[in-house]
Amino acid sequence: MARKKVTLGVEIGGTLTVLGFVDKYGTCLGVSSIATNPHQQSSTFFRRLYEESQQLLHSIPETLEIVGVGIGAPNANYYRGTIEQPPNLSWLYVDVVAEMRQYLDVPVAVTNDANAAAIGEKLFGAAQGMRDFIVIMLDTGLGSGIVANGELVYGADGFAGEIGHTIVDPDGRECGCGRKGCLETYASAKGICRTVQELIATTTDESELRLVSFERLNAAMVRDAALRGDRLALEAFERTGRILGMKLADSVAHLSPEAIILFGSLAEAGDLIFQPTRRSMEEHLLGIFKGKVKLLPSGLREENSAVLGAGALIWNDLYKHTHQRATHVA
Amino acid sequence: MARKKVTLGVEIGGTLTVLGFVDKYGTCLGVSSIATNPHQQSSTFFRRLYEESQQLLHSIPETLEIVGVGIGAPNANYYRGTIEQPPNLSWLYVDVVAEMRQYLDVPVAVTNDANAAAIGEKLFGAAQGMRDFIVIMLDTGLGSGIVANGELVYGADGFAGEIGHTIVDPDGRECGCGRKGCLETYASAKGICRTVQELIATTTDESELRLVSFERLNAAMVRDAALRGDRLALEAFERTGRILGMKLADSVAHLSPEAIILFGSLAEAGDLIFQPTRRSMEEHLLGIFKGKVKLLPSGLREENSAVLGAGALIWNDLYKHTHQRATHVA
Repeated sequence: MARKKVTLGVEIGGTLTVLGFVDKYGTCLGVSSIATNPHQQSSTFFRRLYEESQQLLHSIPETLEIVGVGIGAPNANYYRGTIEQPPNLSWLYVDVVAEMRQYLDVPVAVTNDANAAAIGEKLFGAAQGMRDFIVIMLDTGLGSGIVANGELVYGADGFAGEIGHTIVDPDGRECGCGRKGCLETYASAKGICRTVQELIATTTDESELRLVSFERLNAAMVRDAALRGDRLALEAFERTGRILGMKLADSVAHLSPEAIILFGSLAEAGDLIFQPTRRSMEEHLLGIFKGKVKLLPSGLREENSAVLGAGALIWNDLYKHTHQRATHVA
Repeated sequence: MARKKVTLGVEIGGTLTVLGFVDKYGTCLGVSSIATNPHQQSSTFFRRLYEESQQLLHSIPETLEIVGVGIGAPNANYYRGTIEQPPNLSWLYVDVVAEMRQYLDVPVAVTNDANAAAIGEKLFGAAQGMRDFIVIMLDTGLGSGIVANGELVYGADGFAGEIGHTIVDPDGRECGCGRKGCLETYASAKGICRTVQELIATTTDESELRLVSFERLNAAMVRDAALRGDRLALEAFERTGRILGMKLADSVAHLSPEAIILFGSLAEAGDLIFQPTRRSMEEHLLGIFKGKVKLLPSGLREENSAVLGAGALIWNDLYKHTHQRATHVA
């Protein structure tokens, strides 16, 4: 019986790790998850990950052949195949490629979640056929993946794409990175919650959000309040979009992308965040770029997007090797 | 007799156009110039340019074969081979490739001066062997050329690399582009002259620059005053470097370059501009980038750098076609 070639896509999160098999058309064949157990040794984690992948493999009626493993993880370095000092995980430095290849003798690649999402969008999502685009993930922080000339930009040390740490205001909000005024302190799921607190302090607008503690507040609650017409929540989206749009105009000045794709929990607010972001970006764009850059939602199916992105990473590498990218020469 | 292969490098400026022949080792064999005559028809200009190149060709004792023409020009579009609405020139839209190929049946490529400088640095200058770097030209404005994954970033429409029009302060100085607070209104040869005026207005420091009108002031005069210990001039460099360094930290967050190369008339001030820029960039860099990004002067010989860069453009294209960039596959 013919075996169907798939990649194993893995997204390592602080608490949960999701895995699944992705075929070359971007179909996800079975998804599973394990607890990350961030304080366990990494070698134990990778053994559990392998075992879970084998269970999943045998639960699927089709006969699958794993042709590679793509892993999305925090502080991942594509060049070195490592995870280095990840926040929320107790692993200091893990050679992910070596760990996985103990169990599976196939190509293994690792990158951060936003880069994996960018490759996912390129192969299977909203950026199909595009050579220049940016993916912005608006979750707890702001992650980004940049594609230029058809290739992911890793930079000299593998850590390019940190748009969340460009500076809005050098005297601004304290950031987890130890500096002040980074974009992600304003434009992220957590950033909009901080803006709500600021508006509670500085305005007298009535708002249901005044009843919620900062610890309990999340982006979905701000969205729901805004959809009910809560003025303070609406103003929070307005301010968030204004800052995000202004900084995206800087990204466009660098890279002239065909599109910017907004992804992640804050992006799920739809027009509430897209409209003010688009308006502010257009206002702040240099004339030659005005009206040219699309601001798009993700084209990946929501539930499996992390696995799809990680699985796409390997399909992208395999495709490059096979085709030698002859089409790429000007 | 064997003919030596060269490219014709051309830099079109607002008043003067410089041309010369560049061999594959980056040696400039003869340089000449013609008046641009910006109000003449473009067809007349390209005829004069061809004639001058032929005169130059025959004035050189070696037998040369022109294998391509590389042109650096304002508002040049590499993809379309055009110059579009250039400032300081009365040409609205010129198909540069078609104009040149009337006279020379060889590959013709056109790009803006900062991109040409970036390719020049990559092939013959300070960026040899680098795959990720940025060139910043500090002249009347601030131009930039970005190389990622070994390739110049043109973006979706050919106009990427406008770092001079990233925004320092949306309520800041008026820019020639019609917006406010663009980086080039602070960090450029003209920007530092504006900062001198601001310091004259806001401080009581004695300064020889108080005797000079804004029209007559230039970056070299600010440099000379600073070298004589003029406090106001020194403070102007300090502020310029502070703003430039902060915004370069944003560029690093996008692209993680191995080096940033400062070029142009303001960069000729050496330590006066490099030191405060480096200090501010390091201060504003995200932790993972600190201490990693080199800030370098141009590695091209000053006098012929524009011609070298334009000539390098074609050598770079020819190299790509020949080698199909097999080394480029990960």
